[in-house]
Amino acid sequence: MRQKLIAEGVGTAMLLISVIGSGIMGAALSDGNDAIALLANAIATGCMLYVIITVLGPISGAHFNPAVTLAFYLRGDITAKLAMGYAVAQVVGGIIGVWATHAMFDLPILQTSETLHRSGIAQWWSEILATLGLLFVIFGGLKSRPEAVPTLVALYITGAYWFTASTSFANPAVTIARGFSDTFAGIYPRHIPAFVIVQLIAAIFAHKLFTAFFGR
Amino acid sequence: MRQKLIAEGVGTAMLLISVIGSGIMGAALSDGNDAIALLANAIATGCMLYVIITVLGPISGAHFNPAVTLAFYLRGDITAKLAMGYAVAQVVGGIIGVWATHAMFDLPILQTSETLHRSGIAQWWSEILATLGLLFVIFGGLKSRPEAVPTLVALYITGAYWFTASTSFANPAVTIARGFSDTFAGIYPRHIPAFVIVQLIAAIFAHKLFTAFFGR
Amino acid sequence: MRQKLIAEGVGTAMLLISVIGSGIMGAALSDGNDAIALLANAIATGCMLYVIITVLGPISGAHFNPAVTLAFYLRGDITAKLAMGYAVAQVVGGIIGVWATHAMFDLPILQTSETLHRSGIAQWWSEILATLGLLFVIFGGLKSRPEAVPTLVALYITGAYWFTASTSFANPAVTIARGFSDTFAGIYPRHIPAFVIVQLIAAIFAHKLFTAFFGR
Amino acid sequence: MRQKLIAEGVGTAMLLISVIGSGIMGAALSDGNDAIALLANAIATGCMLYVIITVLGPISGAHFNPAVTLAFYLRGDITAKLAMGYAVAQVVGGIIGVWATHAMFDLPILQTSETLHRSGIAQWWSEILATLGLLFVIFGGLKSRPEAVPTLVALYITGAYWFTASTSFANPAVTIARGFSDTFAGIYPRHIPAFVIVQLIAAIFAHKLFTAFFGR
Repeated sequence: MRQKLIAEGVGTAMLLISVIGSGIMGAALSDGNDAIALLANAIATGCMLYVIITVLGPISGAHFNPAVTLAFYLRGDITAKLAMGYAVAQVVGGIIGVWATHAMFDLPILQTSETLHRSGIAQWWSEILATLGLLFVIFGGLKSRPEAVPTLVALYITGAYWFTASTSFANPAVTIARGFSDTFAGIYPRHIPAFVIVQLIAAIFAHKLFTAFFGR
Repeated sequence: MRQKLIAEGVGTAMLLISVIGSGIMGAALSDGNDAIALLANAIATGCMLYVIITVLGPISGAHFNPAVTLAFYLRGDITAKLAMGYAVAQVVGGIIGVWATHAMFDLPILQTSETLHRSGIAQWWSEILATLGLLFVIFGGLKSRPEAVPTLVALYITGAYWFTASTSFANPAVTIARGFSDTFAGIYPRHIPAFVIVQLIAAIFAHKLFTAFFGR
Repeated sequence: MRQKLIAEGVGTAMLLISVIGSGIMGAALSDGNDAIALLANAIATGCMLYVIITVLGPISGAHFNPAVTLAFYLRGDITAKLAMGYAVAQVVGGIIGVWATHAMFDLPILQTSETLHRSGIAQWWSEILATLGLLFVIFGGLKSRPEAVPTLVALYITGAYWFTASTSFANPAVTIARGFSDTFAGIYPRHIPAFVIVQLIAAIFAHKLFTAFFGR
Repeated sequence: MRQKLIAEGVGTAMLLISVIGSGIMGAALSDGNDAIALLANAIATGCMLYVIITVLGPISGAHFNPAVTLAFYLRGDITAKLAMGYAVAQVVGGIIGVWATHAMFDLPILQTSETLHRSGIAQWWSEILATLGLLFVIFGGLKSRPEAVPTLVALYITGAYWFTASTSFANPAVTIARGFSDTFAGIYPRHIPAFVIVQLIAAIFAHKLFTAFFGR
């Protein structure tokens, strides 16, 4: 169990390094052209997702996401106790990843985001669709071609940076951790609770929906 | 059969979310540099195609395209009745996908496109080549390496956004649905019928050509 | 044999559609930022290479390149007569692909390139390295992981657009055909012979070198 | 053994061609938008890494990196003598790759970099994380899915160009060779020793850490 929790913490830390780091680098180099920064952000995140899911999947299942852990708990694939441990490891790992990134870019370690545009009904709807899509990919992929799940998740998120209005957080641990960075990928802390709530509701709904559609 | 129709509807909705959403995001962020917007559009669409074909392929065959369904009907792989159902599910799913995307980006749900440059003989020739190429990839891929079809279609369309003059609609359901969005990926509704007709003619021609070339 | 020749012609036509078409589209949309145009060019070409090598490989071996055909002839894998037929099919197919692309983009069908910077010792050295690299990838890949050859060639060329100074033609049929297009990917016709000669010399040298290094 | 050393030298030369060449091309074409140049740099390097690891892996193990060779020596997978030979072949190959690239781009062959921003604690921390991540991917990938290692390393480095502040050298041979090029990817020679030292320390630490975590 200790190895699983470390895997979830390390994987989520690496995920946040990719999200925050590529956001900082993209914004710094793109001369204010946010499309190029977002392209870098999307590609770097997709690359990292493929890596951490492939490498850590056999150890912990490679959730790195409390919404995914919740859905696996609802399916009965993981105990309540382990699910709790996973969620804590993910959030703590995510925040450590953010801080490690700030140190690389010679920025103040402790920050809180001032990015204000991630709120409102349209953004929440975007997060609902983003999370439903992510769980569609995971549960559907496990049914149709399990060995493709790292590729499926990586490509889904790379695309979803662009096709959802919220750039697809779809992950409570990532959402919380991004509140700790006043950089390209940040989110204003008071906007975090609504994101987390709609993500978790979408996960519960996704569990019911996709269990009915794909079967077990 | 019900599950197949849902799969075709949901998959086509997801395809349109990727096409319309990434078009809106790309155009919004790229400071008027349409090449960057099209790059985002192409990458996001390719990512989504890999995902929906891999996940839903075992359920419905993952057509998401009445021209593809027509070609499979002509091969005798699918009954006329099911083909009709597929086409309806694809068009309805596509339109719902467009509307879901508008809601994410806080835009009016109901729109009609004013994009006027998608007409004329050169554009129709482009759609003929685009559709022939798509069916070459599907029928040829099923013969040479069936497990690679999701990758083949995803990469073909990602490239075809660039190497065809029409950005490769190659899909009547997508064409119709894109008429409902006055955004980057839109098409003026009166230009839709010609696109759909040449796509379907190309599908019929492709069936004859590729059955002769690749065999059954 | 007829099917093989058609495969070589059609595949090379599709390759040129991807090269010329994405060059035109990239240059048209990128507001004079040639790096973005080249990125589109490289991605579209790589996508197409994966597609045509995967689909047509089992039929003709998927050369689409007289330098590759020459190397396979030197290895004794293909007769002189078939090799000649391949080369003709590749050149004719390539030119037809260029013309089909001009028609899509509503440009004069018959053109000759005025692009003047593709000459001189540095460019020829670039083509020698580009061709050696391509044959390294093909012969080495056939030895180490044959099923990966479509991916290997596609990724090699996508990268080589950037890391060689000539953007890696590495293919006499492509070189000749690109002389027929006064667009982004063109080459001034009088600069073609030197490119073709160094490509063929590199292929002969590659055959000796890689047969010695990788064995048969 | 001779074949292994040639493989390490040639592979590292090819790696440097991709790094230096795409940096020169990207900087030349991107009109001063460094984000686009870095995107080209990252994509071209990732493409090449997939190619050389797939093709040369069965021959030499495809290290191309003294830090990786050191870690494999510490694991007992390679003798001290062979490890020394590998390191020499990698450094020599890397420098030859840089010079071959300068010749392609018609630049003076002999150069020393004047790029001054690759120094300081934040940059060294970035190199430590970059190297730890690389060895995580290699040792973890060998445990979880060995056939995916070429993809894992290629995607990790493509992403790490963006998410580390130093653009992820993570390789003493590459670091030394990049000192010989006063172009986009260069590093001021007096800043090389610190980079090499932290990379090697990270490799030693990674060996202990990942042997404990993943087992042998």
